[in-house]
Amino acid sequence: MARWQPGAPERLQAAALKRFAEQGYDGTTVAEIAATAGLTERTFFRYFADKREVLFYGREAFERVFIDGIEKAEDGNALSIVAQALLRAGDFFGDDRRERSRARQAVIASDPSLQERELLKLSALAESMAGALRARGINATAATLAAESGVAAFRVAFTSWIADGERRSLAECQEEALVELRALLDPAS
Amino acid sequence: MARWQPGAPERLQAAALKRFAEQGYDGTTVAEIAATAGLTERTFFRYFADKREVLFYGREAFERVFIDGIEKAEDGNALSIVAQALLRAGDFFGDDRRERSRARQAVIASDPSLQERELLKLSALAESMAGALRARGINATAATLAAESGVAAFRVAFTSWIADGERRSLAECQEEALVELRALLDPAS
Repeated sequence: MARWQPGAPERLQAAALKRFAEQGYDGTTVAEIAATAGLTERTFFRYFADKREVLFYGREAFERVFIDGIEKAEDGNALSIVAQALLRAGDFFGDDRRERSRARQAVIASDPSLQERELLKLSALAESMAGALRARGINATAATLAAESGVAAFRVAFTSWIADGERRSLAECQEEALVELRALLDPAS
Repeated sequence: MARWQPGAPERLQAAALKRFAEQGYDGTTVAEIAATAGLTERTFFRYFADKREVLFYGREAFERVFIDGIEKAEDGNALSIVAQALLRAGDFFGDDRRERSRARQAVIASDPSLQERELLKLSALAESMAGALRARGINATAATLAAESGVAAFRVAFTSWIADGERRSLAECQEEALVELRALLDPAS
């Protein structure tokens, strides 16, 4: 009987990223991932439907950070609420996560179907954020625009953060992206 | 020998939208679409790989309108260039297209895989727009943020434009969305 394995999904994710980096996403089997993690295939399939899912493990927690950030933000206009949510996300992606995020992004970039899945994930995030903004009384148009602009700022900042040689924190990269966003929207800038 | 049929893709698209509205997307076959258009299945498959593709016919022309708009816009900051491209798109979607756009959107909304395809189309549009902005000398961060915000404004405006009973032009709906986008920075909003 297979039993609950503490930390198993995290170990499987780390093993998958290692294998994908070494031998490519297509060239890696679930059996190899499980073996690298010192676990069985059966344990793998208790947590993930297929090897693609390993890359999207933690998606709910990721989204929750942004939604919590919106729910707990101080009052302000829609964009300032989104900016507060991004800063909370900056805490979530500490520098201890940078290498893993970099490895994951390299795998995503290597496969069009993974890129699509990632885009859909970010699109769903923007939709959830817009819903959380509406729940705070922001009108639907402003909520959608602020959420989409905020996710775009997050993407830009995240791409900087995982670039080779980047030393700034995600929060610092986001601050820069938000400055750029405000400059775009402000015709006087 | 099947010959070139002038206007065939447009006729097939109109026939498909009619059938999808009457009997649902899943419940419609390519044979029925072709028969409704007074064409053969063979002609259908000369233009489209499957019935899904009919809904995305004209995608290149759609994207081209935005890219042309960016290339031909007067100088300004990235968002003002994007705003000029949106106005050009407003001319492309004249009121004679409203019913077709409404019918198409109803089909898209009925099927998650079509929604995904539509999201990916808009995401690709934003990426192309960012590229056209960079080609005008806009920095990469501003280009991405302006393109994503602009596509979000387009989506919001398009949704208003095809809402039941809406009489304003797409250009007017876009003007409103752009005002809302700029107002995200307004402390009073």
